[in-house]
Amino acid sequence: ISKAYGFLIRLDEVKPSGRALRIAEKTGGDPRFIQAILDNSDEVLFVFPFVKLIEKGMIRMEKISRNIEGAYEAIKRAPYTLIVRRGGQIYSDAGLDSSNHPEGVMSIPPKNLDEYAWEIRRRIKELTGRKVAVVITDTEMWFSLGSLDFARGSSGIEVIRKGFGDLDLYGKPKFGGVDCVADEIACASALLMGQTDEGIPAVIIRGYRYVESEEGVLDYRLSVDVIRYAVKEIIMSSIRILGFKWLFKMLIK
Amino acid sequence: ISKAYGFLIRLDEVKPSGRALRIAEKTGGDPRFIQAILDNSDEVLFVFPFVKLIEKGMIRMEKISRNIEGAYEAIKRAPYTLIVRRGGQIYSDAGLDSSNHPEGVMSIPPKNLDEYAWEIRRRIKELTGRKVAVVITDTEMWFSLGSLDFARGSSGIEVIRKGFGDLDLYGKPKFGGVDCVADEIACASALLMGQTDEGIPAVIIRGYRYVESEEGVLDYRLSVDVIRYAVKEIIMSSIRILGFKWLFKMLIK
Repeated sequence: ISKAYGFLIRLDEVKPSGRALRIAEKTGGDPRFIQAILDNSDEVLFVFPFVKLIEKGMIRMEKISRNIEGAYEAIKRAPYTLIVRRGGQIYSDAGLDSSNHPEGVMSIPPKNLDEYAWEIRRRIKELTGRKVAVVITDTEMWFSLGSLDFARGSSGIEVIRKGFGDLDLYGKPKFGGVDCVADEIACASALLMGQTDEGIPAVIIRGYRYVESEEGVLDYRLSVDVIRYAVKEIIMSSIRILGFKWLFKMLIK
Repeated sequence: ISKAYGFLIRLDEVKPSGRALRIAEKTGGDPRFIQAILDNSDEVLFVFPFVKLIEKGMIRMEKISRNIEGAYEAIKRAPYTLIVRRGGQIYSDAGLDSSNHPEGVMSIPPKNLDEYAWEIRRRIKELTGRKVAVVITDTEMWFSLGSLDFARGSSGIEVIRKGFGDLDLYGKPKFGGVDCVADEIACASALLMGQTDEGIPAVIIRGYRYVESEEGVLDYRLSVDVIRYAVKEIIMSSIRILGFKWLFKMLIK
């Protein structure tokens, strides 16, 4: 999407501020890249020290790479990832992507990808008469060795299955039944799209029975504020239920 | 798997300990259920206060349910989830599952699901002569309104794509290229399996070109110790790079 719509940033047109220079000095990254992240985010939430986890042997390179030399080169270019808030959502490096771009060029996805999904759906209908649903995906690393693709925008499909409390085979109300359908579609398509030089921009899924909806992904994402509140509630509830010794144990471990 | 192999626990055969009674008093849960969690875990990591997030309006019931009455009934049965360590892995409620079981009966998955995947693969080969890969999945909630299915065991397929550092279309080494293939397969199959009363135990995927491997999911999961270390490194790096004002802001927000 970002490339198709031309949302491109040229590194040599970015002027790093004092803050970007200070951060870059500590991370060893390119200050212009840091500035581009700051320009496109509302708040830096935390720093993910990928290079440290590699250095300390917490992540073993041979588990994720067959091209160790290239892997070290990639990490040298981006030793730390800035996890930022952009609108209400969380992005790694503000969503900036330099992979499969010429040297010195990056793209940045628009924030309102639900609207872009809606527009693609509308155009497909206009051009072909077909009623389809559209999910726009992006790759994010998470607390695992690898990455998953997630839905960043959607139109025409129910994002989450509203099955919480539905009766199971024994007539008991279900705790769960809330598949993130849009994310599962993103993951299914990731199996075919690949990540590096496959150059597959879209995957067509046929025959899947989905619930139609005019809501989009953003109607179902937890905002950063809600996640912050949830973390606080987790800590408070854990202390209340497991005792202060829990907090003590967490802090020293 | 748990049901097929008969790894069942009957609530009325569980004798709650003093600790289970104390926790149950504070959570409003069934002390026998709490005891079954404690029996099958090595450490309680934290408590997830689902009921609090609903009460405070952080999670809106109508976003995840069409059966609001059933949903409140399900939450009354399980107002808090205990997130535990079981071996090196993280489980909600130790992986205990009472959904689609008769009242008072739960199942618990074995820890070494890679071996179970290997055994299923071996039997399919024996019975049909077909070479297949097997992924065993389970549903976990995460920091989102809904759940995803993840791989808990696998055999015959490479778990993570080892593409970190591979060259992109412009010859630059890729930061990424590490799809959690086994998890993406789990998500793809979740689209068809459903969660509640569909009764679909397995999904067959045909035509997907995968990398063969004798490693399993457990060879690629970050252990709880590594995640703990990573969280500490995130905090240390964030302070070093963003300054102490970052820590202060995190604490007061």
